[in-house]
Amino acid sequence: MIQQELSLDNIERTWDRIKDYVSVTPAVRWQDGELLREFSSETEIYAKLEIFQKTGTFKVRGAMNSMLDLDEESLGRGITAVSAGNHAIASAYCASQLGTSSHIFMPATAKPLRIQRAKDYGATITLCETQSEMFERAEMSQEKDGRTFIHPYEGPLTVQGSATAGKEFAGQVPQLDAMILPVGGGGLAAGFGAALKQIWPDILIYGVEPEGANTMSLSFDAGTTVSLENVHSVADSLAPPKTEPYTLDVCRNVIEEIILVEDSLLIDAMRLIFHDLRLAVEPAAAATAAALRGPLREKLSGARVGTICCGTNLGLEDFWSLVGSS
Amino acid sequence: MIQQELSLDNIERTWDRIKDYVSVTPAVRWQDGELLREFSSETEIYAKLEIFQKTGTFKVRGAMNSMLDLDEESLGRGITAVSAGNHAIASAYCASQLGTSSHIFMPATAKPLRIQRAKDYGATITLCETQSEMFERAEMSQEKDGRTFIHPYEGPLTVQGSATAGKEFAGQVPQLDAMILPVGGGGLAAGFGAALKQIWPDILIYGVEPEGANTMSLSFDAGTTVSLENVHSVADSLAPPKTEPYTLDVCRNVIEEIILVEDSLLIDAMRLIFHDLRLAVEPAAAATAAALRGPLREKLSGARVGTICCGTNLGLEDFWSLVGSS
Repeated sequence: MIQQELSLDNIERTWDRIKDYVSVTPAVRWQDGELLREFSSETEIYAKLEIFQKTGTFKVRGAMNSMLDLDEESLGRGITAVSAGNHAIASAYCASQLGTSSHIFMPATAKPLRIQRAKDYGATITLCETQSEMFERAEMSQEKDGRTFIHPYEGPLTVQGSATAGKEFAGQVPQLDAMILPVGGGGLAAGFGAALKQIWPDILIYGVEPEGANTMSLSFDAGTTVSLENVHSVADSLAPPKTEPYTLDVCRNVIEEIILVEDSLLIDAMRLIFHDLRLAVEPAAAATAAALRGPLREKLSGARVGTICCGTNLGLEDFWSLVGSS
Repeated sequence: MIQQELSLDNIERTWDRIKDYVSVTPAVRWQDGELLREFSSETEIYAKLEIFQKTGTFKVRGAMNSMLDLDEESLGRGITAVSAGNHAIASAYCASQLGTSSHIFMPATAKPLRIQRAKDYGATITLCETQSEMFERAEMSQEKDGRTFIHPYEGPLTVQGSATAGKEFAGQVPQLDAMILPVGGGGLAAGFGAALKQIWPDILIYGVEPEGANTMSLSFDAGTTVSLENVHSVADSLAPPKTEPYTLDVCRNVIEEIILVEDSLLIDAMRLIFHDLRLAVEPAAAATAAALRGPLREKLSGARVGTICCGTNLGLEDFWSLVGSS
């Protein structure tokens, strides 16, 4: 049973709230090319292209929904966030659109392009050495400066935001047998999946996690939230160190199975997406294609399958350093 | 006055004819990023993404319209074409879709990926040393084998095909002040421009040619078709050696001005498109963005402008060899 706040009516209300600040993104049917050759001829593959979303990723949908929920006084005191990049850029954009300030804590290892893009939207960026330092500093920013913490993937408001992308996609493609969604903290999979499950109750939702950052898979096994000391994946956008209760709950509700993919599969899928769709994306945005041609290939051959390029912010050199040495 | 065969009714009929074989491609509003910073804040820039078209380029629209015009007997004898790549791939795809054969003559310098993609659709490919050899061999193929020559850019059927993309775009974006279109042989600019001029009579259509392959610009000056001994541009898809009468006539009718761009501007625009739109495109597909931020910047600041990524077929290594050394 999907939570009431994620009902189709409430997703529609969320859209009405955020639509002036976000884009409807296109969906395309997968081109003739390498991927389709690996499947039986009746297979149909579609891709939702959230890379064309404002700030380059779906993150802006949830961040904007969270900020629009704030009263004027809270909004006036600004927001804070922690992020390896995409949520930082999205939060900074939303704050600038709403005329308030953002102070965002990023890892010192964050890609320079992502730091710059967040700064371009006026964010104050503080680089931190450890994950725990990021969260501690953000907490201080809440307590001392009165800023509101905008979570990258937890809570009904964030998940409602992602759900608008799922409802949108359902209006752009024929009825799907399966949808594959990347899982970092699970905010996208929870919302997108909840929308599709209500529209097409028989659809199978698969989540994809990097092998080295499998917090959701471990949480499914444990039946509760899990926190990892170390996560490592080339898909840094899919590698938060812990799960959170609300999003985990929705994910358990809508996801059929979590698929783990190795880094090498992600890199191969980046090349595939360049070849077939002419898109240059970061590893996270290639995760669903990686799972489809890898672990899910036999199961989904002949089916009507949805994939998503959930977003990307990657410099040319970083892109080439990942895909160049084949 | 637009030719009768390019009337909006006839464009609609063309679409009805080809629509089972081609895709409706998305249009997006240009993201926040480098390009928009170069223009006044009220400027709106849109992009038609024909890279998501079947075979990766708009060429398939005209080629399919030409082949569907053939009677069964002619179609059964197959088709022939000359092309540096994109038209070869499109023609081969159309032939395979219609259950006939294709024999296509390509330059020996054609990119291996493009040759392979045409072969993947079942084409017989013959590589030639010179442009004139390509055309002679294709003529022999018509005379000896009875194949029909599918022109890459000349004639009403080809131009009708391109016109379907223009009409489609007009339904996806608000009314535009200006549209910028790349010019190789002029088939895209003629059809796309003719559609827009009928829908929005006040729109200004700009054509973009590489400096080293400026046959259309020379033809405008001369008032007649022009043939060049040598053309050279990094945008090989925009460098046919001559103009043809029908397409030239339509172009003179709809194009306000031809803008010339240097190769370095094209390469810079490829980087821009990677950065702002997350797309990895060949130089030809970056031509309209190059003209917009270069020669047309002052003129179009504050306007509502349409651009197009007209298509791309480029390998990873070729992409990097063009954009990698900034």
